[in-house]
Amino acid sequence: MEKAGFDLIVCQDPANMCWLTGYDGWSFYVPQCVLVHLEEDRPIWFGRAQDARSARLTTGLPEKNIVPFSERLVQQPVEHPYDELAQMIRSRGWRKARIGVEMDAHYYTARCHAHLINGLPDAHFANNHDLVNWARLVKSEAELVLIREAGAICTYAMNRAIEKMRPGVPQNHVIAEIYHAQIMGVPGAGGDYAAICPLMPVGEGTSTPHLTWSDAPLPDSGLAILEIAGVRRRYHAALTRTVHFGRPPQAILDMAKAIVEGVDAGLEKARPGYTAEEVEAAWQAVLRKNGLKKESRVGYPVGLAYPPDWGERTASLRPGDTTEMQSGMCFHFMTGVWLDDFGIAISESFVVTDRGGERLCDVARELIVID
Amino acid sequence: MEKAGFDLIVCQDPANMCWLTGYDGWSFYVPQCVLVHLEEDRPIWFGRAQDARSARLTTGLPEKNIVPFSERLVQQPVEHPYDELAQMIRSRGWRKARIGVEMDAHYYTARCHAHLINGLPDAHFANNHDLVNWARLVKSEAELVLIREAGAICTYAMNRAIEKMRPGVPQNHVIAEIYHAQIMGVPGAGGDYAAICPLMPVGEGTSTPHLTWSDAPLPDSGLAILEIAGVRRRYHAALTRTVHFGRPPQAILDMAKAIVEGVDAGLEKARPGYTAEEVEAAWQAVLRKNGLKKESRVGYPVGLAYPPDWGERTASLRPGDTTEMQSGMCFHFMTGVWLDDFGIAISESFVVTDRGGERLCDVARELIVID
Repeated sequence: MEKAGFDLIVCQDPANMCWLTGYDGWSFYVPQCVLVHLEEDRPIWFGRAQDARSARLTTGLPEKNIVPFSERLVQQPVEHPYDELAQMIRSRGWRKARIGVEMDAHYYTARCHAHLINGLPDAHFANNHDLVNWARLVKSEAELVLIREAGAICTYAMNRAIEKMRPGVPQNHVIAEIYHAQIMGVPGAGGDYAAICPLMPVGEGTSTPHLTWSDAPLPDSGLAILEIAGVRRRYHAALTRTVHFGRPPQAILDMAKAIVEGVDAGLEKARPGYTAEEVEAAWQAVLRKNGLKKESRVGYPVGLAYPPDWGERTASLRPGDTTEMQSGMCFHFMTGVWLDDFGIAISESFVVTDRGGERLCDVARELIVID
Repeated sequence: MEKAGFDLIVCQDPANMCWLTGYDGWSFYVPQCVLVHLEEDRPIWFGRAQDARSARLTTGLPEKNIVPFSERLVQQPVEHPYDELAQMIRSRGWRKARIGVEMDAHYYTARCHAHLINGLPDAHFANNHDLVNWARLVKSEAELVLIREAGAICTYAMNRAIEKMRPGVPQNHVIAEIYHAQIMGVPGAGGDYAAICPLMPVGEGTSTPHLTWSDAPLPDSGLAILEIAGVRRRYHAALTRTVHFGRPPQAILDMAKAIVEGVDAGLEKARPGYTAEEVEAAWQAVLRKNGLKKESRVGYPVGLAYPPDWGERTASLRPGDTTEMQSGMCFHFMTGVWLDDFGIAISESFVVTDRGGERLCDVARELIVID
């Protein structure tokens, strides 16, 4: 914060709020945030009055650091909760502060920003460029314990899904199985809700990554892609597998093989001494050799997350990203290829180690053929 | 739009995007929107290149109305997808348009707004005050079919949860059961993901509404609240029930009885000729008579929704809201009372009819005692 020139940062990203204070609850559909001031020992939680009790139960913050806003401000067309946030900031003597806000955090709306600025005309506002998200990039040992448990949950859920996927089975029956497994978790580690619902594009739908299910039956032939996460105390490990119903054409088998080979090439470089773009380049080189390419970025950091995204919005595995690999970083290596009429994805989540990327899940690394 | 003074509206709320075009996919974690221009026959979908194929599969829009942005703009610190949105608006000759944006839509971030304004210096921007959300308030017959199916799914899921809730059962086992039921749905109507995860505060946690589960066992005595929805093709019906383990004290039984009586009083007024605040007042009168009160609003419209909220952010059942009840409006009547150390909620979702509020779910209307 000091180096970036801020006295105060306003953090609305729910994952940042949790990481800074432990706060946990599905209350992020109303404006709320955690404030960190250079001269304060502890962060300040600001949120809806009825959620202040959740802050008392889930954080270790002292009472004076839990500041509720008035219930009547919820979804009001004229007044806004951040009128009271501005007032609170003024009342603490910070009206001239240099304030860093998360301009692109999902729930920091244009209206939140407008009311905050309006209430603090003497402050200096700037985008803090996801300062806290960047601080979350390298995971602690305690975080890695949870992420590895999340990986075990993801493995269990993916395998249960694959067992359930047969021609004629309604798509939603497979998804019900996935949710059940995600939440049951594995012995010693119950599961939590994922930041993204299970994604299962089928047939032509595999040409695009974010379609969800219907209650139509799975087909007798063709492709389906599954993208899911395991979640343990809000820490995520994500995974993608592709299923082929019926005997797959050789071209599809070749493409799947190239993808797995590309993953190995990337994992090999996921160690200190290499950069994000070098991991991507290693994968892309294998694709190119096989006459394929993937235009979009091929991975992003994962960890503590809330809907709508399990990515951390910082580094990307793509050309131009020179973030250096450090032990303890975790990525979802989103290794898929989407063509005009179908796609195949066989991804891994990994933790960066001295020996390369360590896979967090353990599901058969191949095109899953259901014949 | 004309009456509100707009040539063009930019709709980023995923529910508005779906309602206007049919677009459906979990892609709302990147900037995307639907544009409606007064002089155009059809809306325009704007989103990520890899999601454009989802737009082709889920909307009936012609190809020229599906405008993808470049993949390299995803989560870039300097450039932003809305630079290309501004460019597209200029290229269609709308650079001086009066543009209405959804200032408080969950995903319309401060940065989205800043880039859009910056790219259109000659346009006139104003908050469109959720114009499309308001248009969604009265449901069509086709929408009511889906909402009633959602109600049936919610009934099924709530009853399965209650059957599963026994002292000693790990909390996450109950939640796994709920998810499974929500997605399996009922005969003829498969379920979809809900805009909010199942909420199940337990014991002291019932004093605050948005806590989620752990893998700790359910207690031998005391309260637990369940708040869930059933969802059919993105249409929601939500419901809350309270469980008491062991024999409940008389004060808790009395409070539950007062809540159910308050619901009936409100439902009676949920018909044309009354306003939102009159529905609330009828409920509040019963509470007052029983020495209770609820400070926060007691309901909001439900229908088509995406995470993080199944409410529609328009009318509220609270003092000062003079929205007139019209047949076909749907509300979640969030009838709960939260005290300092515990809470009880026994809510209903209803559709406004000439005969009063018609309940969408059918679960025992009482404190559920598990002894």
